[in-house]
Amino acid sequence: MTVELVFIGTEILLGNIVNTNGAFLAEKCAELGLSCYYQTVVGDNEERMIQTFQLALSRSDFVIACGGLGPTPDDLTKETAAKVMQMPLQEDNHTKKRIEEYFRNSQWKTIPENNWKQAQVPKGAFVLDNENGTAPGLILEKKGKSMILLPGPPNELIPLFTKQVMPYLQKQQPEVIYSKMVKLSGIGESQAADQISDLIEKQTNPTLATYAKTGEVHIRVTARAKNKKAAKKLLKPVVSELKKRFGDTIYTTKEDITLEEAVVKLLRKRDLTVTTAESCTGGLLAGRLINAAGASKVIRQGYITYSNKAKHTILGVNKGTLKQYSAVSDQVAYEMAEGGAKAANADCCVSITGLAGPDGGTEEIPVGTVYIACYFQGKAKVEHYQFKGNRQKIRDYAVVRALNLLRLCILEE
Amino acid sequence: MTVELVFIGTEILLGNIVNTNGAFLAEKCAELGLSCYYQTVVGDNEERMIQTFQLALSRSDFVIACGGLGPTPDDLTKETAAKVMQMPLQEDNHTKKRIEEYFRNSQWKTIPENNWKQAQVPKGAFVLDNENGTAPGLILEKKGKSMILLPGPPNELIPLFTKQVMPYLQKQQPEVIYSKMVKLSGIGESQAADQISDLIEKQTNPTLATYAKTGEVHIRVTARAKNKKAAKKLLKPVVSELKKRFGDTIYTTKEDITLEEAVVKLLRKRDLTVTTAESCTGGLLAGRLINAAGASKVIRQGYITYSNKAKHTILGVNKGTLKQYSAVSDQVAYEMAEGGAKAANADCCVSITGLAGPDGGTEEIPVGTVYIACYFQGKAKVEHYQFKGNRQKIRDYAVVRALNLLRLCILEE
Repeated sequence: MTVELVFIGTEILLGNIVNTNGAFLAEKCAELGLSCYYQTVVGDNEERMIQTFQLALSRSDFVIACGGLGPTPDDLTKETAAKVMQMPLQEDNHTKKRIEEYFRNSQWKTIPENNWKQAQVPKGAFVLDNENGTAPGLILEKKGKSMILLPGPPNELIPLFTKQVMPYLQKQQPEVIYSKMVKLSGIGESQAADQISDLIEKQTNPTLATYAKTGEVHIRVTARAKNKKAAKKLLKPVVSELKKRFGDTIYTTKEDITLEEAVVKLLRKRDLTVTTAESCTGGLLAGRLINAAGASKVIRQGYITYSNKAKHTILGVNKGTLKQYSAVSDQVAYEMAEGGAKAANADCCVSITGLAGPDGGTEEIPVGTVYIACYFQGKAKVEHYQFKGNRQKIRDYAVVRALNLLRLCILEE
Repeated sequence: MTVELVFIGTEILLGNIVNTNGAFLAEKCAELGLSCYYQTVVGDNEERMIQTFQLALSRSDFVIACGGLGPTPDDLTKETAAKVMQMPLQEDNHTKKRIEEYFRNSQWKTIPENNWKQAQVPKGAFVLDNENGTAPGLILEKKGKSMILLPGPPNELIPLFTKQVMPYLQKQQPEVIYSKMVKLSGIGESQAADQISDLIEKQTNPTLATYAKTGEVHIRVTARAKNKKAAKKLLKPVVSELKKRFGDTIYTTKEDITLEEAVVKLLRKRDLTVTTAESCTGGLLAGRLINAAGASKVIRQGYITYSNKAKHTILGVNKGTLKQYSAVSDQVAYEMAEGGAKAANADCCVSITGLAGPDGGTEEIPVGTVYIACYFQGKAKVEHYQFKGNRQKIRDYAVVRALNLLRLCILEE
């Protein structure tokens, strides 16, 4: 079955807010096995809303419309949906009482005249009580189609959807959709796609889709079946094949595990501690490691040594090395990693030294040159990268490569 | 003139990513004085894309389509747009050379076969060079309508749009739109809006719009006039009024200056050095400061002291203080800032200690508790925050508040 999402609000069209409801509802609908082919954002304008609702109803089974249920005259979603579905508005006693109750418990002494409009509901609609506001959610059914109206504020929309709309939608569904995310690091998107082009070409059920992330590629494998067990069974051989083809390039097959979480998990499993010695990334690597809940078990401290003096004083990098090879060199990356591990008394140390620009590039050391070293068990592996892009992109890529180098060094043991 | 935004990507329809490009482009189009009545998200499906493009072209002057320009076979945006605009694809030598060059400078030794597809461009289209990827932007003009195709990754889309599409759109406009961005830190959006509600109510030309960012509020003041000079003249008294009302809460009135850049600029102006001592943010504060080009003039090193032992060993925080007050306390924040400044021999030190969760909260110290201290000229100012949200949000807010505290401490001198 198909669902279409419509977001009503001038504040989205003007870019005043990021439409986070979009990602929330899209993910939940996918989880419910509903196919969503379109999302539309439209302003609080009756004519354009009618057009949008009619188009959405013509091509989808369910239309979820968010926003525009407020008390002011420019909130038109309910009125317009009632018109399109030909279900005239009438006062709902239950909702009227809830509004009175809401205001009795609030800081406002009188109920603004505007709010009574929120007690009007389309005749025959299901009313979904809103625990966190005065606008109820509404389900309008007609001729095999449903319009579901939800308030825009996420703290009202999320509980309403989760507790009341999801069970409603689940009941209407014949099939279950189930997907696995295979996450890779240290490979480009087109390179990854090349390696599975045969699988992508012949895909039917399950399907494969690749997503490029900074320094990562995610492959979503999605199956449809009568139930979750059957869907899982369809997925299994495809995920196994991906594991065979990509090997250690895969850092997880779990949807919600990030690269830093996979690294922290690996360190914890091997009972290892890590520290960081950063120059151009200035703390971003440690910052990402510490993103992972439970990072305190593996990282106790980290060093940001942006100046040559700090590299020498804090990490013990040789003054001679700095002078002979310059700070952006594999030798310095090596000594930073070795010195960091010793200073912190940690099992591993990852170091990053590079030139993120925009200025300071030379012919020998152009902007984007980055050396990454990982010191582990008495030896260090050093990698040389030439990144493209602006300062932020160079630094972000360096961090991902460093996390991946650490991961691979441990796995190689 | 009207613009319509189309976002192509199954990852948006499946809720894998939040569509931040939507807010970015919507804001920029509003800034350009373009009316935007619709945004649509559609998947990588030719038939549905054709439908969406045709509908958008039928009702808007410009259609900006983002995403689906990648090298894989499921990237169909360019092919579909070329079909709809009846501009057949042909190889573009210039783009082909750029792709070769991109790969020559990259870590990949061979150019994947897929990538050659990116050198195909619709006949007669303007090619917009992409500095951060292999997919160029494209402008397709026909019968008074324009389709503008942009790559989906924000680090490619944003510079492409800002540097090449904005000037193009500006040229098509009868009036000049000129705006100033007044950026505030340390104030909430509704608080800021309250302070200028009279200005917002009576706005005609210039107009005011507030944008909530993480720990910041941006107010865009936009004027329309026959030329830039006249527009600037209209802006001036409004910007002066904002300066009068918000004072030091304003950190810049320059569009492209970030909070960290404003802070680094201020430090450089006063010839001061800074260091950082971070616990729960684990390097993100230093990482943000070092975002600012030229940061090496003011920050030489930074400390990540995640464990109590590291706080004691590296920063000299008293073991007694840690035991008596716990690591998440104003006393420890104070000693971290003081100890950091001394260890680095820096003029200022900003410290952050807090509980970012998700676990470990207690009744006295709930998740979200953060202490931030700034040591400067022999004394330290400590602030206590109780942030809401997940681990990442708490850490991001802490970093912004720390940057702002540093800024205000210096300004107060």
